[in-house]
Amino acid sequence: MGMQHTPLTMSRIISRGATLQPNSEIVTATDDGVRRQTYAQTVSRSNQLANALQRAGMEIGDRVGTFMWNGSRHVEAYYATANMGVVLHTVNIRLSPVDLEYVINHAEDKLMIVDADLLPTLEQLKERIPTVERFVIAAEPGLEDWETSLPNTIDYEEFIGDMPTVFDPPDIHENAPLGLCYTSGTTGNPKGVEYEHRAQFLHTLAICMTDAMSLSATDTLCGIVPMFHAMGWGLPWAGLMLGCKQVLPHRFMSPERLVDLMSQERVTLSAGVPTIWQGIKAFIEQNPKKHDLSQVSRLTCGGSAPPESLVEWYWDELGVEMIQGWGMTETSPLGTLARRTSKQWHLTASPSQLTQNSCKAGLLMPGLELDVFDEDFNRVPHDGESVGEILIRGPWICSEYFRDPQPSKFHEDWLITGDVGSIDPEENLIIADRSKDLVKSGGEWISSVDLENHIVAMDGIAQACVVAQPHPRWGERPVALVVLDDSESVSADEIKDHCSLKFAKWQLPDDVLYVDHIPLTSTGKLDKKTVRAQLDTDGYVLPDMR
Amino acid sequence: MGMQHTPLTMSRIISRGATLQPNSEIVTATDDGVRRQTYAQTVSRSNQLANALQRAGMEIGDRVGTFMWNGSRHVEAYYATANMGVVLHTVNIRLSPVDLEYVINHAEDKLMIVDADLLPTLEQLKERIPTVERFVIAAEPGLEDWETSLPNTIDYEEFIGDMPTVFDPPDIHENAPLGLCYTSGTTGNPKGVEYEHRAQFLHTLAICMTDAMSLSATDTLCGIVPMFHAMGWGLPWAGLMLGCKQVLPHRFMSPERLVDLMSQERVTLSAGVPTIWQGIKAFIEQNPKKHDLSQVSRLTCGGSAPPESLVEWYWDELGVEMIQGWGMTETSPLGTLARRTSKQWHLTASPSQLTQNSCKAGLLMPGLELDVFDEDFNRVPHDGESVGEILIRGPWICSEYFRDPQPSKFHEDWLITGDVGSIDPEENLIIADRSKDLVKSGGEWISSVDLENHIVAMDGIAQACVVAQPHPRWGERPVALVVLDDSESVSADEIKDHCSLKFAKWQLPDDVLYVDHIPLTSTGKLDKKTVRAQLDTDGYVLPDMR
Repeated sequence: MGMQHTPLTMSRIISRGATLQPNSEIVTATDDGVRRQTYAQTVSRSNQLANALQRAGMEIGDRVGTFMWNGSRHVEAYYATANMGVVLHTVNIRLSPVDLEYVINHAEDKLMIVDADLLPTLEQLKERIPTVERFVIAAEPGLEDWETSLPNTIDYEEFIGDMPTVFDPPDIHENAPLGLCYTSGTTGNPKGVEYEHRAQFLHTLAICMTDAMSLSATDTLCGIVPMFHAMGWGLPWAGLMLGCKQVLPHRFMSPERLVDLMSQERVTLSAGVPTIWQGIKAFIEQNPKKHDLSQVSRLTCGGSAPPESLVEWYWDELGVEMIQGWGMTETSPLGTLARRTSKQWHLTASPSQLTQNSCKAGLLMPGLELDVFDEDFNRVPHDGESVGEILIRGPWICSEYFRDPQPSKFHEDWLITGDVGSIDPEENLIIADRSKDLVKSGGEWISSVDLENHIVAMDGIAQACVVAQPHPRWGERPVALVVLDDSESVSADEIKDHCSLKFAKWQLPDDVLYVDHIPLTSTGKLDKKTVRAQLDTDGYVLPDMR
Repeated sequence: MGMQHTPLTMSRIISRGATLQPNSEIVTATDDGVRRQTYAQTVSRSNQLANALQRAGMEIGDRVGTFMWNGSRHVEAYYATANMGVVLHTVNIRLSPVDLEYVINHAEDKLMIVDADLLPTLEQLKERIPTVERFVIAAEPGLEDWETSLPNTIDYEEFIGDMPTVFDPPDIHENAPLGLCYTSGTTGNPKGVEYEHRAQFLHTLAICMTDAMSLSATDTLCGIVPMFHAMGWGLPWAGLMLGCKQVLPHRFMSPERLVDLMSQERVTLSAGVPTIWQGIKAFIEQNPKKHDLSQVSRLTCGGSAPPESLVEWYWDELGVEMIQGWGMTETSPLGTLARRTSKQWHLTASPSQLTQNSCKAGLLMPGLELDVFDEDFNRVPHDGESVGEILIRGPWICSEYFRDPQPSKFHEDWLITGDVGSIDPEENLIIADRSKDLVKSGGEWISSVDLENHIVAMDGIAQACVVAQPHPRWGERPVALVVLDDSESVSADEIKDHCSLKFAKWQLPDDVLYVDHIPLTSTGKLDKKTVRAQLDTDGYVLPDMR
């Protein structure tokens, strides 16, 4: 043995930021402004929380649930449980009551920390989540007088108030569980992904690489992606390790509030799904030059591929690089990342080429393996044309689901991601679709995402969603649902004509439906499952078959 | 188990660069220019080398020695042995024959790869290194007709020529040994540090962080620090992982050749010891505006603290950030790193403040623990004043020496670094000295490094070296040796007056000795052991005692 085999536990990195930058701030949006606390205060309060959780009987490996927005107390819960060896189950606040009941019972959460404004949602379940012995209520300004029908509740401040501000982390194994996050579950019950210390330790170092998100101690991070979604893409951990200023929007998610926050707090990097950035773009276009966003340099965009028009707009109008990331709950989440400039030859490439780079899912993170496979699990060529199932493996990739192994989701030691795509000769991953959202027409695949991104780039179109509908001859055919911008009118023929600029005739949507809004999933993606169910309920049939 | 426990072996990251940027180049300096090969070629050739080493009987865990300059074949040896699970013993070509014999025998190198121009040095040992079964001779242009009295030799190209260009790495444990590097050994025999796969995997991710060296796939790296010294500070590994262009000076180490190389190959980052940067500064001052170094953005400087005047000159004259790193063979090597801008408040700090930042040893890398201790192993306050022994621990810190545990070099699970220093209120490490180079006068410490850096900042002084000399009353007193710039004259009184601007009277050197040159160690540091031995041989006595 020549080197120390120090366990790679999160307690070894998460206090570094507070040590180096004790006065760096964590800013949480409130009803009428923001509230601030320093990293030094955050660590003291987190240690109080750890001591309080220990007094409440939480032991190494127990699950503590959070039912919370992004805010400083949620960061404290991350920090405290990681140091204790307790498992943080970040419950998705947008789940249906049925799924909520399932995940809380399946995880056997022993205690839950709940944002006061979210109490009504949980109260619906109060008789049906018996493992939860105690509810700790986090009250933001204006909500201090919370009341609830939930049993065994205590205010967060009272819970931690009299506790010591120091906490000595116990020794735990580097593969001990750290967090638990359930996938949104488009079919069947939600499935739990158990994050482990070592995996998140590695993921945290990796996302701080220059060629990843280029995170730095001098950054001001605004995590819009919920902290209940795949560990908030790792930003809370990276922030704690580096001492970045963190700006958290809590429940104030309107484009106006987000833009205000990013401008006033001088945010340098923010992270969210494309629908957030679409909304912010629309707001800025309606309110030009009202906000100073000159400090923003990078927006990290995940969850689904952004339209090229969106990437271009942010670069041209704001000088902001939209970094596309690809991953999922099962991949901790970062698998690939697309930067404008990631290779030697990009240094002299044209701006439009660089924008193209950002529209792909990008290059594989170091330490992982990824490839595209056909139905017999043979690797397909990296020609940018051959489409297949994306498989991935490596030290921060899920090996099985929590108490629900699901062997069909794995092939040997690879995770079958459920995404289909291709790899181009430059080794960029290009996502075609979720495998269940692909339209299979006459034996050929049509990418619903490609059609959507093409349609949404048209003037007058606010949103587009393409789903498959059954067809007796072709198997499936694509149908487009569109939301128009206010007071705009775009005909179905215009949309089809526009699509025919890029797509073959057989790939064009058979029908265009005008709707007022398109439902989104709990993680902000187009909810195609609901769209398809609604069409079914409405008795929709394709034009061919009418 | 929720996550895959993929072993953190180097084979999982070192082929990434060649996959993403197969046409990126490795450039090696030659007698009359450079020779180039692509990453794709490098991987093919490395695989040929691995197959050839296997054919020659090298098995997992065996030691293969290199006796080489920085060049593409040395990179191939890194790559091939890492993939094979063979241990690369990078022999320091500047060791004395006695030490060379010791390290090769102690490591039991089974095969050695030797640069042809270095054959005469090894030939001296030919009867005394019996474990070496074979010598593979790497011949740069002009040296193809090498001849040697060493037995069992073969030309590198012949050795690998007929081998397959693919190699499938065997499964090895993540804590398996990867490399072996002996410390230069200022007392006693050299001691071997065994690098392990996991430790270097983590170190490689860490140095690619924005807040570390900000390495990127778009960088062109020029590793001047020898690849036989602490894995070339990790640059060969980071380059292979990212696909950076690598520019390697081989045996052409004159300031003129280095500046030519950096300019012509558009180097963005280079790494070396302060004496290299002093030499290059002097060359540029004598040859102003002759070379375009506008592409260079960072110089990484390790081995000893750079004088502030040097850091300032590079920033003011060339716009180049000198990044100070602190570490040693035992720390893989990166322990701390000083950047100009590493905290939120630095964003609005003055240029001179930022230069100050770069002159400290800087901030601890994530995942490590470091502190300063008094003689009873109590931690001293982080006040920038309290000096003590620096201890460090973590996943890329040495736990014992190879076949030579040396328990006195460790305290519990901490490495006793042999450096003394302090930590300031901003958590910057400040190195006072090697513990053996401190001058202890009247029970108080005087830092020889501080005095040297202060003296060398004077006009007319090329180099300065301060060593302790025995004194009957004070224990030890400092003596300064100085090398003057050509045709300059600076009196001893002027030097002492200059020192008294910063140092207390009792800290001033008792004597100033004018010398033509100061001996350097095999790693380019001031060789104070030799200086002291020479003063002893010369019968030097302090002025007080004459």
